[in-house]
Amino acid sequence: MSDRILRIDMTSGSTVFEPVPEAWAGLGGRGLTSAIVAAEVPPTCHPLGKNNKLVFAPGLLSGTRAANSGRLSAGAKSPLTGTIKESNAGGTSARMLALMGIKAIIIEGMPEEKKLFGIHVTHDSARIVETDMAGAGNFSVVEKLSGEEGGKAGVISIGPAGEMAMPSANISVKDPQGRVRSLGRGGLGAVMGSKGIKYLSIDPSDAPGISYADENAFKEASKVFAKALTEHPVSGEGLPTYGTNVLLNVLHEAGGLPTRNFRTGSFDGHEGISGETMHARIEERGGEGRVRHSCHPGCVIQCSQVYPDKNGKVKASGFEYESVWAMGANCGIDDLDALAEADHMLDDIGMDTIEFGVTMGVAMEAGILSFGDASGMLRILKEEVTKGSPLGRLVGAGAECLGKAYGMRRVPTVKGQSIPAYDPRSVKGMGITYATSTMGADHTAGYTVTSNILNVGGMVDPLKKEGQVELSRNLQIATAAIDSTGLCLFVAFPVLDIPESFNAIVDMLNARFGLSLTGDDVSALGTSILKTEREFNRKAGFTEAADRLPEFFSEETLPPHNTIWDFSDAEVDAFWEF
Amino acid sequence: MSDRILRIDMTSGSTVFEPVPEAWAGLGGRGLTSAIVAAEVPPTCHPLGKNNKLVFAPGLLSGTRAANSGRLSAGAKSPLTGTIKESNAGGTSARMLALMGIKAIIIEGMPEEKKLFGIHVTHDSARIVETDMAGAGNFSVVEKLSGEEGGKAGVISIGPAGEMAMPSANISVKDPQGRVRSLGRGGLGAVMGSKGIKYLSIDPSDAPGISYADENAFKEASKVFAKALTEHPVSGEGLPTYGTNVLLNVLHEAGGLPTRNFRTGSFDGHEGISGETMHARIEERGGEGRVRHSCHPGCVIQCSQVYPDKNGKVKASGFEYESVWAMGANCGIDDLDALAEADHMLDDIGMDTIEFGVTMGVAMEAGILSFGDASGMLRILKEEVTKGSPLGRLVGAGAECLGKAYGMRRVPTVKGQSIPAYDPRSVKGMGITYATSTMGADHTAGYTVTSNILNVGGMVDPLKKEGQVELSRNLQIATAAIDSTGLCLFVAFPVLDIPESFNAIVDMLNARFGLSLTGDDVSALGTSILKTEREFNRKAGFTEAADRLPEFFSEETLPPHNTIWDFSDAEVDAFWEF
Repeated sequence: MSDRILRIDMTSGSTVFEPVPEAWAGLGGRGLTSAIVAAEVPPTCHPLGKNNKLVFAPGLLSGTRAANSGRLSAGAKSPLTGTIKESNAGGTSARMLALMGIKAIIIEGMPEEKKLFGIHVTHDSARIVETDMAGAGNFSVVEKLSGEEGGKAGVISIGPAGEMAMPSANISVKDPQGRVRSLGRGGLGAVMGSKGIKYLSIDPSDAPGISYADENAFKEASKVFAKALTEHPVSGEGLPTYGTNVLLNVLHEAGGLPTRNFRTGSFDGHEGISGETMHARIEERGGEGRVRHSCHPGCVIQCSQVYPDKNGKVKASGFEYESVWAMGANCGIDDLDALAEADHMLDDIGMDTIEFGVTMGVAMEAGILSFGDASGMLRILKEEVTKGSPLGRLVGAGAECLGKAYGMRRVPTVKGQSIPAYDPRSVKGMGITYATSTMGADHTAGYTVTSNILNVGGMVDPLKKEGQVELSRNLQIATAAIDSTGLCLFVAFPVLDIPESFNAIVDMLNARFGLSLTGDDVSALGTSILKTEREFNRKAGFTEAADRLPEFFSEETLPPHNTIWDFSDAEVDAFWEF
Repeated sequence: MSDRILRIDMTSGSTVFEPVPEAWAGLGGRGLTSAIVAAEVPPTCHPLGKNNKLVFAPGLLSGTRAANSGRLSAGAKSPLTGTIKESNAGGTSARMLALMGIKAIIIEGMPEEKKLFGIHVTHDSARIVETDMAGAGNFSVVEKLSGEEGGKAGVISIGPAGEMAMPSANISVKDPQGRVRSLGRGGLGAVMGSKGIKYLSIDPSDAPGISYADENAFKEASKVFAKALTEHPVSGEGLPTYGTNVLLNVLHEAGGLPTRNFRTGSFDGHEGISGETMHARIEERGGEGRVRHSCHPGCVIQCSQVYPDKNGKVKASGFEYESVWAMGANCGIDDLDALAEADHMLDDIGMDTIEFGVTMGVAMEAGILSFGDASGMLRILKEEVTKGSPLGRLVGAGAECLGKAYGMRRVPTVKGQSIPAYDPRSVKGMGITYATSTMGADHTAGYTVTSNILNVGGMVDPLKKEGQVELSRNLQIATAAIDSTGLCLFVAFPVLDIPESFNAIVDMLNARFGLSLTGDDVSALGTSILKTEREFNRKAGFTEAADRLPEFFSEETLPPHNTIWDFSDAEVDAFWEF
């Protein structure tokens, strides 16, 4: 059976399985969501209007035996940035959709009445049903649907933030432990909410499964690939043991950890929230956290940290560095338990932790609460955001909007999206990525931390301008390609250091689809995706003038290295010369 | 004595009188503020940062005996729109600056410490002094300064909204009655607040006065001009009797009166808030309103309405159609007394009435309060905006920001600025002006209501597309020129119908400066200003994609004519073909 596209029209209520147009046949994940958005969404449309579309797509290798291939991409025009957007996460749905032969789900239109719906998808049907789950948190949605549909159903859902169409609302996806992972950035949850969709339930029963052009070749390549993942020190050891939060002390030491709304590059309270402290506490308090977890089936890295409360009961799951940084160092908070509580609440509400933490940093600078006020932050989540009060709405709108309302000048955003956990003055490659990414400020778009900090894929001095544009360009191209395969971005660690692992990816693609791609073809795919996305943004009204960091990065030096953002406009714009 | 430019650096505290560069010698008002902003402000700078500049300039004819020549222009990069901005109002300061030989005041930099200052300007000095007027309303600032400096001092000030750097904060200027007029749009009050300036006091004692190249010729031309103003039915009769609010019933009848957040084009409660009702109430309640008022010395139209409370005491002064519409029809409120109270409060707080009213319309649609809830609106002003609460901040941030925070799709803005009192679906020429103006949605930029509704300067059917682009283009060019002379925009009524009045303006310019300009030269000036402004916006990142009306105008028909916004992108973009 050939792969199909499931098109759901929320205006008419129709659901149709369509053949995959030839132009999209070789695409998956981000490559496919961006191609569909670019082809079908008018670039100047209102992101919450009937002309925007929400697209879900598993990657090209999703559903296969390839390790770490279970990322699910979502794409749309972003209500946060106004640009094209792709965001991805693990969870169980990507694999299911691939096994069901559903290459993408395109959700379009808008219901006339303000009702809330769920969509039940099987391998040959899709039903739109009204739901009474209005206001429910993601955890209860997952729980309820797992009961109804059996534990195996995949769930893609939004929390109250998405229902309220907050620009920082994310989309959640059920993970192998029955908890949630987030397609975090760009407010795609608001797009889902604007279309009146609370959840999609993915029932893979009777899925026809994956076919391989050459299954033996695939097996061989996948072994090489998995071996590289487990042998590389970052993906094989650092990440499994400490999770992504292993980075907190690393960035603190490097002087690139944005602290108290990007005032300094190191945090005096770093010990309280570091990956080492998190690890020690998990060991000490016991419980589920001691077992390794992955965000999707088939992951061999298993970097997910499950953080317990004082009684060993799960408090936060998938507790990542960027979340700990955003609400921690960036808000001057060194209380890991409080951060875990906030992280759990944000998962339930369905809001991007990075956007929330950076917004709180601006709110603290604006005097709404004080730096370090963990209980104030939790109160805002409980009493304001959840209830959609004016302050809750302002917080949910993101840092740019809150900063505008409070007349703030130090607002760390690019294209309206909050800058994540690496200060661009002292991790300069990340500054190039933030400025030029088609997605607004996004660390995953071209993660130069590899060479800037981790000495993976060579070393490029993070404090100097030399080599950063090229580094960011190469990584952004590679990332766009990786984001199309369904592979987790962390495969980049072995890929950058172990040549066989990159060849193995190319071999897997060829063995799966009967192709004869070369490494250059994969790069060309990445290039083509970036150009498609940029062309959409151009038509949406973005020019080079939007490829700029906020002014204050060029005016204030960052301790301890007293670095400044010193790239000229022309140097930044040279990024796009390819 | 030659004219000079006064440059005030708020970083260093220096004040310097500089000679006027040759390139700026022939410019005044908007032409000059836009030329200075374009030359000296980096287009991508933060509007509230030290790189933005705030420029004040009287017009080319300000200070002369020319009727209606006392408008003061202010220019900067706008914190509301991000575009270049010029806003102007009457008051007494423009004439004073002209008499003092001060062609422009350029305020740049930012104080290091968060202090509040006043600036005392005489014809040969400028002193920056600390002030204790933090939090004061505009009325008390004017009162206090009039006491200190003698009743003759001009005052340019901001209220609490400007101090809080709200994007809808305006700048006030003292008028001949000792009350205030507003340079309303684009948040220039926030720029003034960001520079730590509460007020400028303009002391014209010992001003050298105006010189004329040919005083007799000027006298002759100014008589022709004043005669035309008093003879034209709109400027000579309609406006003086009913004020600008004469338009409320006119627009209601024409079906172009945006009502309840642009849902319909006529308002069932129009009688309660019409110009005729306002006039009758002024007559009935007595008091100062029975005497004709002007916003600046030398005005022969005197359209200002002074509206009394039930005891005949002044409640609102300069009570304009756009304010009555924005808070009235657009919010479903038909209580003129309540609107007068809100108008007075907004004058004191220093906030644009149009931006406020449109924001309230969106807030009502979002369910924050109900349409028609006048007391709720007053409560928000008193309890939220004045105190800078989260809701007050959201309201002060304008419709676009509030709409984003509440996930609203029907947000009537262009380039982030609220669309004023003429629905673009049924007054289509205004739609072209809103879409293409370099200032964001602005009715004064190219007031096609003349030919669309008032049958001035010919008739162009407001419901049809034919002729609107050309009409808007001609008016935008003419307006840019008029805005440079210091003349009130309402001189356009005779100018469009009585050829001698336009010639008289050219003659006055020639007689004042010893030039031999033709009408074509004046048009060329207008063209040049628009292109300078557009070039700034281009560099700031604005493309054709920003020259668009919100999507809902193309999707929802407007009763009673059931019209829709039906211009193609190419038709709108043709505006700039000149």
